[in-house]
Amino acid sequence: MDIAIVLFDRFTALDAVGPYETLGRLPGARTTFVAEQAGPVRSDTGNLALVADRALADVPSPDLVVVPGGPGQHAVMAHVPLLDWLRAADAGSTWTTSVCTGSLLLGAAGLLRGRRATTHWLGLDTLAEYGATPTGERVVFDGKYVTAAGVSSGIDMGLALLGRIAGDEVAQSVQLATEYDPQPPYDAGSPEKAPAHLVARMRENSRFMLT
Amino acid sequence: MDIAIVLFDRFTALDAVGPYETLGRLPGARTTFVAEQAGPVRSDTGNLALVADRALADVPSPDLVVVPGGPGQHAVMAHVPLLDWLRAADAGSTWTTSVCTGSLLLGAAGLLRGRRATTHWLGLDTLAEYGATPTGERVVFDGKYVTAAGVSSGIDMGLALLGRIAGDEVAQSVQLATEYDPQPPYDAGSPEKAPAHLVARMRENSRFMLT
Repeated sequence: MDIAIVLFDRFTALDAVGPYETLGRLPGARTTFVAEQAGPVRSDTGNLALVADRALADVPSPDLVVVPGGPGQHAVMAHVPLLDWLRAADAGSTWTTSVCTGSLLLGAAGLLRGRRATTHWLGLDTLAEYGATPTGERVVFDGKYVTAAGVSSGIDMGLALLGRIAGDEVAQSVQLATEYDPQPPYDAGSPEKAPAHLVARMRENSRFMLT
Repeated sequence: MDIAIVLFDRFTALDAVGPYETLGRLPGARTTFVAEQAGPVRSDTGNLALVADRALADVPSPDLVVVPGGPGQHAVMAHVPLLDWLRAADAGSTWTTSVCTGSLLLGAAGLLRGRRATTHWLGLDTLAEYGATPTGERVVFDGKYVTAAGVSSGIDMGLALLGRIAGDEVAQSVQLATEYDPQPPYDAGSPEKAPAHLVARMRENSRFMLT
């Protein structure tokens, strides 16, 4: 199975690395990081670059596509080469997936119309504008489309999809190898659980980023 | 605060990216990925390279050091330039931290003698050989030394340390922004919880990697 993980300027690193570290351990799979041009692609903080080993044009027909999100998603929402690639790759894919606001890119490519999907909690309203039915679930399967909520949810998505593709034991082995037995020191990981004033502040600060 | 995240050939990507995505969002912090030489450093799967923006020698006195682990840790356990850098950086650091088998490198540098510490569950016996007292906790604080268990535990460590450095609200905001509300599809993330035959198989397969 050929897995392609798409990078673009100012993506969020964990969006991409969560699925890479889980799904990418599928026995026999070949994972390739791709971007419009091969080479280093810098993440949203500016402090980290991941290398895209291949250009989009060199990986035209992956079996599984992963689209991460991040603040840079906004700048490529109408970027024809990327959207064209997503549509072409999706036409031949077995699975088309996203993490965080990556689903807004799938939406912009017209791939989520009439489908249940999710995204970062700050992007749920925008997701609806692309004809998807947003849900608050952490990982949403709708046919071959698998979308995950914000940033860290790509780890849960990766394990869930690994289980579907290769069976429970493979997924459990990867969970054990990555010691994914989460013990967050706070219980503030969703807008329902976090202190209300922090949720309000984040909504206010993001007002111009996601529309 | 200057944060340095150390890369070496065949590191595990999530070990490094978990703390980067959490701790690295400390207001006012500057995070730098460093390696013996600046440039791309390839992870354990061979399918991903992260860019070290600076050489170790160019970042001699970070305030906070993060050492990830991974299969490549074994090859650098006696690598003098790296161990010398770790000792020198530690001499001036406010916090010295590790994820996964990164603590074995801290141990090899002589920094964990007499300290409580942790590592990937497969490395706990090896950790004891460096004079540390291994614990099964996911994140261990002992003075300025903070060690985390396997791979994904760096996210929990990052948030816990963020709370200590900048207060609960900053840590909670980062947890909310990264939507870290984990919902693993299986409960197999530790040797106590995973099916016993998977634990046994992984122990057997790793017999030659960690000693």
